Amino acid sequence: MTEKSPIIIDLRFDRDSVLRALPEAFPGRPVIDMGDPENRSRDLSQAAYAVVWKPDPDLFRRASGLKAIFSGGAGVDHILSNYQLPDLPIVRFVDRSLTDRMSEWVVWQCLYHLRNGSIYTEQQRSRIWREIAEQPEARDVTVGIMGLGVLGADAAAKLKVMGFQVIGWSRSKKHIAGVETFDASGLEAFLAQTDILVGLLPLTEDTRGIYDRALFSKLSRTGVLGGPIFLNAGRGGSQKEEELAACLADGTLKAASLDVFVKEPLDRNSPLWAMPNVLMTPHAAASSDVRALFRHVEEQIGRLERGEPLQFVVDRTSGY
Amino acid sequence: MTEKSPIIIDLRFDRDSVLRALPEAFPGRPVIDMGDPENRSRDLSQAAYAVVWKPDPDLFRRASGLKAIFSGGAGVDHILSNYQLPDLPIVRFVDRSLTDRMSEWVVWQCLYHLRNGSIYTEQQRSRIWREIAEQPEARDVTVGIMGLGVLGADAAAKLKVMGFQVIGWSRSKKHIAGVETFDASGLEAFLAQTDILVGLLPLTEDTRGIYDRALFSKLSRTGVLGGPIFLNAGRGGSQKEEELAACLADGTLKAASLDVFVKEPLDRNSPLWAMPNVLMTPHAAASSDVRALFRHVEEQIGRLERGEPLQFVVDRTSGY
Repeated sequence: MTEKSPIIIDLRFDRDSVLRALPEAFPGRPVIDMGDPENRSRDLSQAAYAVVWKPDPDLFRRASGLKAIFSGGAGVDHILSNYQLPDLPIVRFVDRSLTDRMSEWVVWQCLYHLRNGSIYTEQQRSRIWREIAEQPEARDVTVGIMGLGVLGADAAAKLKVMGFQVIGWSRSKKHIAGVETFDASGLEAFLAQTDILVGLLPLTEDTRGIYDRALFSKLSRTGVLGGPIFLNAGRGGSQKEEELAACLADGTLKAASLDVFVKEPLDRNSPLWAMPNVLMTPHAAASSDVRALFRHVEEQIGRLERGEPLQFVVDRTSGY
Repeated sequence: MTEKSPIIIDLRFDRDSVLRALPEAFPGRPVIDMGDPENRSRDLSQAAYAVVWKPDPDLFRRASGLKAIFSGGAGVDHILSNYQLPDLPIVRFVDRSLTDRMSEWVVWQCLYHLRNGSIYTEQQRSRIWREIAEQPEARDVTVGIMGLGVLGADAAAKLKVMGFQVIGWSRSKKHIAGVETFDASGLEAFLAQTDILVGLLPLTEDTRGIYDRALFSKLSRTGVLGGPIFLNAGRGGSQKEEELAACLADGTLKAASLDVFVKEPLDRNSPLWAMPNVLMTPHAAASSDVRALFRHVEEQIGRLERGEPLQFVVDRTSGY
């Protein structure tokens, strides 16, 4: 029996979660864990696969025998930006768990803003008992989702169950049951109807810096929430962060929930930390479950080795 | 044409929301608004109906000609506790809007605790970027709902869509699709499986003080959240508040979200205000939309006057 081809693990994740998942992963297959200092200068030329998140810039030069690259998350910009990227299939991580977690975050944040979470938190701190007299309900609010892949479609369905009006935007027209959708040419019409904007876009040349003052200024200002709200759980590179902070300060945006930033960790001097109308999480909206990631990779390697086509392969032209 | 019988409005609600809703309500019917000082000593004996929330203790003696009493909210304990309550049908307020709002609050709070909202809020305040490594997802957590009326059933359905395991308890056995339910005799088995306890019980002699240390001590302590969590959006009188605070201080409960209290507004000296593991809202989880309330009352009066049976009539023996 021939030995299985080695697999490289180069995941800039919480180290413990990788170490916990590795022992039961990839049975019978040699694993080269780049987090182990002993492997730093090891010969990687025999490895057939690599599972990566923000990989070492030199990895793909050293691992010259790769047949496929697996992203450790839904995004792949951390791979596509590599200068020495070989012409190999790149497989995104698509997973029920990751999708469900993202929808948890999106629904949580939409409800938090709808139900005036920040006001009630402040009132509790000051021991003030005061009900907000005019409390809109979800059906009075339109959530507009930018990015209608697996994550956007799942969030849309769950937001609808909670009662929100939901509309969606993607560069090319997508069809989602019960959701009015817009394509590139419909961006202004989409924004004009949107009370809560949910960013779930991949980072590509088209989406870099797309969330800027010009875009925020086109959001609906006539909704029951008293001003537009921005959620970003896609990629930080899609937001112009200084313009975002300025819009949150001058009322162009009423509030924001931000899980992603141009540079992570977010600089301690960023004004976003201390803004009372900003809720932040540290790129934690939908972290990859490492065990689920390894199961997904094993399944795709199985397909490849049985001669079946890989799934979730990235289109390098569109960047996702 | 005979004039319609007068209706009394005695709602201890936000005054503005009552005043905004009244002009378009009860067309052709004389309205006696007890919030108007001119009506304080008026003869009420000709009124046939009363819509009340925490009514004047003397109201029912003065309004001797009533045919039906309508509660301004889902609860009716504020009426049943009246010493001079006449033997008349009491109609609960059941409304899509009220149900949806309650489920918004319940799902919001379950997601807040699941996704470590309090930790991330504290970290943001201290400008700390740190992802919680072990983030359970909704499907790892069992939410146990006490109270399976219209509100409990709707919350159960929406929590299931978000991925939570959901079980339910009510005094007499209820059947809800896809939800394991328990009755009075199954309380201990129900609590032993519950990670997040959601209280949606009406206040009756059976439920007064039901949430006490003995009950909290029977909740599951082996779940992924690291300790049981208690949500109460039913009635404050169902919780033993000193025991609740003590359980939150000594770890018997990990955290709580409280919308209701034994005495409202909550006393400024209550330790609950300042507990870092408590999120409070001022009986605002599902406030009645006054316009919707008046539509519901009109509809029920219409049924009565057409000789049809009233709906949502309270069973005085059970208290709800």
